[in-house]
Amino acid sequence: MSSVGVSSLGASEGSRDKIVINVGGVKHETHTSTLMTLPGSRLAQLVDTEKPPSELFFDRHPEVFSHVLQFYRSGKLHYPTNLCGVLLEEEFDFWGISGTDVEPCCWAAFRQNKDAVEALAQIDPSVMENDQSSHTRAWQPKIWALFDNPLSSVGATVTAVVSLFFILLSITAFSLQTYPAINPHQMYVVSADNSSENPVENLSALPRVLDAVELVCSLWFVFEFVTRAVSCPSKLSFFMTVMNIVDLLALLPWFFRWCSGSYCIQALGFLHVMRCIRVLHVFKLMQHVFSVRVLKHTLRASATALCTVPLMLFSCTLIFGTMFYYTEFEQLGSSVLDIPSGCWWAVITLTTVGYGDIYPVTVQGKCVAILCAMVGVLLIILPVPIIINNFIKFNSLLKTKHSMPRRKEKSRIPTSTSTA
Amino acid sequence: MSSVGVSSLGASEGSRDKIVINVGGVKHETHTSTLMTLPGSRLAQLVDTEKPPSELFFDRHPEVFSHVLQFYRSGKLHYPTNLCGVLLEEEFDFWGISGTDVEPCCWAAFRQNKDAVEALAQIDPSVMENDQSSHTRAWQPKIWALFDNPLSSVGATVTAVVSLFFILLSITAFSLQTYPAINPHQMYVVSADNSSENPVENLSALPRVLDAVELVCSLWFVFEFVTRAVSCPSKLSFFMTVMNIVDLLALLPWFFRWCSGSYCIQALGFLHVMRCIRVLHVFKLMQHVFSVRVLKHTLRASATALCTVPLMLFSCTLIFGTMFYYTEFEQLGSSVLDIPSGCWWAVITLTTVGYGDIYPVTVQGKCVAILCAMVGVLLIILPVPIIINNFIKFNSLLKTKHSMPRRKEKSRIPTSTSTA
Amino acid sequence: MSSVGVSSLGASEGSRDKIVINVGGVKHETHTSTLMTLPGSRLAQLVDTEKPPSELFFDRHPEVFSHVLQFYRSGKLHYPTNLCGVLLEEEFDFWGISGTDVEPCCWAAFRQNKDAVEALAQIDPSVMENDQSSHTRAWQPKIWALFDNPLSSVGATVTAVVSLFFILLSITAFSLQTYPAINPHQMYVVSADNSSENPVENLSALPRVLDAVELVCSLWFVFEFVTRAVSCPSKLSFFMTVMNIVDLLALLPWFFRWCSGSYCIQALGFLHVMRCIRVLHVFKLMQHVFSVRVLKHTLRASATALCTVPLMLFSCTLIFGTMFYYTEFEQLGSSVLDIPSGCWWAVITLTTVGYGDIYPVTVQGKCVAILCAMVGVLLIILPVPIIINNFIKFNSLLKTKHSMPRRKEKSRIPTSTSTA
Amino acid sequence: MSSVGVSSLGASEGSRDKIVINVGGVKHETHTSTLMTLPGSRLAQLVDTEKPPSELFFDRHPEVFSHVLQFYRSGKLHYPTNLCGVLLEEEFDFWGISGTDVEPCCWAAFRQNKDAVEALAQIDPSVMENDQSSHTRAWQPKIWALFDNPLSSVGATVTAVVSLFFILLSITAFSLQTYPAINPHQMYVVSADNSSENPVENLSALPRVLDAVELVCSLWFVFEFVTRAVSCPSKLSFFMTVMNIVDLLALLPWFFRWCSGSYCIQALGFLHVMRCIRVLHVFKLMQHVFSVRVLKHTLRASATALCTVPLMLFSCTLIFGTMFYYTEFEQLGSSVLDIPSGCWWAVITLTTVGYGDIYPVTVQGKCVAILCAMVGVLLIILPVPIIINNFIKFNSLLKTKHSMPRRKEKSRIPTSTSTA
Ligand SMILES: [K+]
Ligand SMILES: [K+]
Repeated sequence: MSSVGVSSLGASEGSRDKIVINVGGVKHETHTSTLMTLPGSRLAQLVDTEKPPSELFFDRHPEVFSHVLQFYRSGKLHYPTNLCGVLLEEEFDFWGISGTDVEPCCWAAFRQNKDAVEALAQIDPSVMENDQSSHTRAWQPKIWALFDNPLSSVGATVTAVVSLFFILLSITAFSLQTYPAINPHQMYVVSADNSSENPVENLSALPRVLDAVELVCSLWFVFEFVTRAVSCPSKLSFFMTVMNIVDLLALLPWFFRWCSGSYCIQALGFLHVMRCIRVLHVFKLMQHVFSVRVLKHTLRASATALCTVPLMLFSCTLIFGTMFYYTEFEQLGSSVLDIPSGCWWAVITLTTVGYGDIYPVTVQGKCVAILCAMVGVLLIILPVPIIINNFIKFNSLLKTKHSMPRRKEKSRIPTSTSTA
Repeated sequence: MSSVGVSSLGASEGSRDKIVINVGGVKHETHTSTLMTLPGSRLAQLVDTEKPPSELFFDRHPEVFSHVLQFYRSGKLHYPTNLCGVLLEEEFDFWGISGTDVEPCCWAAFRQNKDAVEALAQIDPSVMENDQSSHTRAWQPKIWALFDNPLSSVGATVTAVVSLFFILLSITAFSLQTYPAINPHQMYVVSADNSSENPVENLSALPRVLDAVELVCSLWFVFEFVTRAVSCPSKLSFFMTVMNIVDLLALLPWFFRWCSGSYCIQALGFLHVMRCIRVLHVFKLMQHVFSVRVLKHTLRASATALCTVPLMLFSCTLIFGTMFYYTEFEQLGSSVLDIPSGCWWAVITLTTVGYGDIYPVTVQGKCVAILCAMVGVLLIILPVPIIINNFIKFNSLLKTKHSMPRRKEKSRIPTSTSTA
Repeated sequence: MSSVGVSSLGASEGSRDKIVINVGGVKHETHTSTLMTLPGSRLAQLVDTEKPPSELFFDRHPEVFSHVLQFYRSGKLHYPTNLCGVLLEEEFDFWGISGTDVEPCCWAAFRQNKDAVEALAQIDPSVMENDQSSHTRAWQPKIWALFDNPLSSVGATVTAVVSLFFILLSITAFSLQTYPAINPHQMYVVSADNSSENPVENLSALPRVLDAVELVCSLWFVFEFVTRAVSCPSKLSFFMTVMNIVDLLALLPWFFRWCSGSYCIQALGFLHVMRCIRVLHVFKLMQHVFSVRVLKHTLRASATALCTVPLMLFSCTLIFGTMFYYTEFEQLGSSVLDIPSGCWWAVITLTTVGYGDIYPVTVQGKCVAILCAMVGVLLIILPVPIIINNFIKFNSLLKTKHSMPRRKEKSRIPTSTSTA
Repeated sequence: MSSVGVSSLGASEGSRDKIVINVGGVKHETHTSTLMTLPGSRLAQLVDTEKPPSELFFDRHPEVFSHVLQFYRSGKLHYPTNLCGVLLEEEFDFWGISGTDVEPCCWAAFRQNKDAVEALAQIDPSVMENDQSSHTRAWQPKIWALFDNPLSSVGATVTAVVSLFFILLSITAFSLQTYPAINPHQMYVVSADNSSENPVENLSALPRVLDAVELVCSLWFVFEFVTRAVSCPSKLSFFMTVMNIVDLLALLPWFFRWCSGSYCIQALGFLHVMRCIRVLHVFKLMQHVFSVRVLKHTLRASATALCTVPLMLFSCTLIFGTMFYYTEFEQLGSSVLDIPSGCWWAVITLTTVGYGDIYPVTVQGKCVAILCAMVGVLLIILPVPIIINNFIKFNSLLKTKHSMPRRKEKSRIPTSTSTA
């Protein structure tokens, strides 16, 4: 076969204008003309002379260069998935190629590692570990850790359990006081019917016991709050934390105890709800469970997207509530008489709770109800993929963050990129 | 060891009929006979002469060629997962090998990147960014963006919030008018009972206030609709959009106000439902949240598959409704007397709403109900994997689309595939 | 530095007992002693002579060999994830190494492709495409496709829609006949109360219309069934298919029409349920949707595992039903009087339907109910991961199966593994 | 172009201070100065002499070394994803590099295989296969397998089915005895109303039949328990297993039969619940299904994280229950009179059961209910990602564990890492 025939098939036997590029020991061969296709790049500058060199040596990554050379050959930059995108970008920079030239087919894989590193950096380190280096006095960190981080020591765990016990005790005591049989004075339930005529004899001592319990609980809560407020590393951030404001408000019901009247009862109700919110402190004891920490990050990251569900629910409630009103309002036997009631029905059907206090009786109303229940079932599963997607992402990120070593001595290694 | 013994073990020491194929600097060696196994290919043509060359040079990707050569050796084309499928197909084309020869075990990986590129191209770019280049007059684009894209400027966000406020105000005003106590004229509820004898005095002014509120709202809606219709880039596509038709219909209730009669009330109901659908404009404010955009694509792509759920629900409703009728109809105390009522019970049980207006009393009826509730629970989770699968797919695609650079200067680089 | 010092650090400058193994052009170097560590293998046999050769050539895959050589060096066989496991196994066979020697860390990746190929082969091809090559007469395949595969032609789609219309029509007609107002003869509802004294005049014609409709429907069903039975490719498999038996049974109600009595009504009920099951034919029209086909495979593969949910539900029902009975039975006001009623309550609570016909009134009963509702919520999500896992698997497999080319001309390529 | 110009672009034509490192036949070239950047490493020691060698040979993995050399060049250690992390760590150890120097971008991939191996090792092998090697007598293993492992033989499956039949029979018999019509002696329901005056004649024989059935069942259970206790491999672990304690307690009701009184009935209730728990033995028959085994591992691993759901439910119950009480208690018509009742309503709404025994009537109460139902819907999907994540993990691990060969002859291969 003649050399012409060989050449027509893309092959060559001679060595016309060939150049050997030795990168880290691996010898790549190509035509000089190939290197001229990317005018501004490092290699094009090197061969753009009258007498280009026949061999060049670079002390760089040989495998990455084979992909760089392929970019010269085909004009398309593909990304090898076995190499890290960060490494490739560094090498591309050396060869004078932009990472943005990567083809769309390889773009996702090219970004993958870089995105992961950026996401890792964004994870709030304060969530991972409790910073205890900004205290001014020696005893402060220990007291603060004792009350704030239940996993820091055995004493802290005991303190947390004791605190939780008092929270539950105070809620229980207050709840029991709302029983008419127990509390004949009806301090809280002023407008209730007069069933206090026949108080059971053995229950007459209970109100005083409950009062004593609540006094003890309140003393503990005041002690705990003052101790934490005094030992906290930053007063400002302490009083800006939601849970601490809740704790403060939950201390107040004691002072509203002896006042009465409708206004006072509503304030008491609000403060007592604060007391119940305080029970969320129980999750402090769960923070060492890895999945729970992942779930916390997931919910924080999904918060904005999860708002679509209440918005969707609100829109569907208005639409189905109005439809329900117009299909049912002529039915006098029906208890639906206005659009707000129709919306109440719609939301209870959409969330598949279905109390049964209002339900359609006409055929058109039943059709609206069927549609409403089906949309409700779909609405429930809508946030599932968002949560799962973020959970998988943060599970991987937090696992990496936990297992990754802290490299403090890393800086001693000097970078030695070009030492020709 | 003799050369024969070596040869019997697949090895050779000599250089009989060996050929060196230098691809981009990497020297591959094989037997000439190996290259003859694929008669039509480029290499087979090159060596199919009396005196085949002992060395050939190709300015191609060396790593891909090692897999091409393995195809000659074993007759099986495997796909290396660290290289992009698109790159491989280009190289395979050069060597005269079809991508369809890839083995089944490697087919999925081979297609992966190509499928991703095709899916990327199918994502409607108009969903990603608002096209604003087809306006004829200078003021049009600004006005249009002000009313249609709440995220284009601060003014646009304010306009969207104001518009949303008027929508909610008009819905609230109308809903309150359906209270019998508020609206003694009973304009809308003609057939309601005559409870308007004792209108509360301080409420008598409210109907006139509500009328005024609705007038203001209607003026705003007319102004907004006219402005948007005038400034829209294409009149045809404007009046073909579902939400714009809804907006137009929602303007009409004002004109049906003073007519009465059953027919008119039903028309009014339909138009008022339109007014409620208008509340979906709220999602315009959520379009910047990435997960919400992914969810939108997910739902659009899953729409056809999600139709199985209503179809399944419909079939199960008929089956369980009929079964329920035949197990319960002899029970006179039961309120189920016909198959449609049985179907109504079935759908309320299948969606786990369970109003409790109808429930089985016989043992067989309870067995049907248990079966029905269990099938319902399974039906609810049926669409979950479809939505999750599409969410993961579009999450990845949209992330790629967003981070990918727009390459406009790409065309300046000439392709230089074969320059031997 | 002396050669001894170099040697102590694992390096060598000389060429004592070194051997060069040229595999497909790539020259690997190692010590002869290294090759002796795996006595039975191909390379150990080649060098186990007095005077081992200093260079060997093999026309094999060079990259795989580098991993084989590493096995000689370290005694551990790791799997490179960029190469296909099937290719590796072929090469390992040549070098006399067993694939089972792969380390545990790489085993999952090694099996991956092989498992995928096996799973692909297990997918029933008859699900993918309708086999139409076993008909004896020329007109049979066309008729069969017309009635059995709605997507084969426009005519077949029309036939399917017409058939579905008749199914719905017959169900509607029958359902209306169960209305007491419409059907004063009370043929089906023998034991119902005598409310047929005042039949509405304009409804008196309806029963005869419904009878006529049902006659037309029955004629169509008989015609369709006979046509399909005659044109089916295999009589045996036709009458063994569940849906065809259902179709046959659904033809019978017509003959039970004029008989009465309790036994007859129950038979009629069973047959009418068959008629409703026939509505599942609607899914034939959905089979072209890819996700639906994946869902079908998913449910078939998950069937056994999904049985845990009813079993779990059954066990929990018994446990909670009994607990409920023992906590509530002394409460006379409660309607719960026996364990079966308790179980009925438990299952309705576990599935979160909650009719409200039975609910606990004692404190202990409420605690059981809370526990029951929580277990129910967990039971509902139990099958979700099973379904999702199988959906992801079959989604990938079916996508591969669909896009994979049918290679019929593959056999022309002879295998040329060892041509030394 | 002068050599200076070339050098300024990072290239070199000469061979000043270059060193060739031949690793397993692949020749890597670099500058001696590059190797000095990591002072303590093996290569730095080798070249840290007056006259460094110009070529070194190492019988190691060539591909891994190219990444090691890149660490010398750039000071950053990236991880190639096509090689196993365990292999890399071994090679890194040889070259004197710590695996902890891997960059954050590659850390996740580097740990992946190692984590998988560690997780594989943690899977309890006793869950995978029944250990039967610790029996003292010959007949013990067979008897034990017959009663404990239903899948070990056909006889064992029959035994398990028979046992399950007796369990269900005994539960059925006992449940029927709670019917007042069947059991006129009212032994269990002492405080029930006297409706036993008119016992149906044909039911009078049933109590005696039920007694006989229960006697037979009890005899079987005693026989089965004694046989299993005698044949068990370890008495201690047998009596520490939860299900065996349940079995033992379930034998006792027979002895409480003839005693009466409130205390005794409660004990009987507890023991009868044990009898129902015994029905969980049915899952022994499901253990061969792969997905069920994966689900078992998933639930065990997710147990701690799943505790968040009841905790969250408990907290939300307290918060919403208190809010409900304060919004509704003034409404006398409402049946809500104390906070515990409010909490009962809250939990039934949060789990979307919605009995309808208590529902809000005031506008504020309805707003609390809507919030409560929405939080409930979100609470239900909270554990889904945890379960899915663990399911996917264990599905992969168990699949690997099952398909992986047992390598017992592995130890015969000596490790031959450094044989220079
Ligand atoms: K309900
Ligand atoms: K419900």
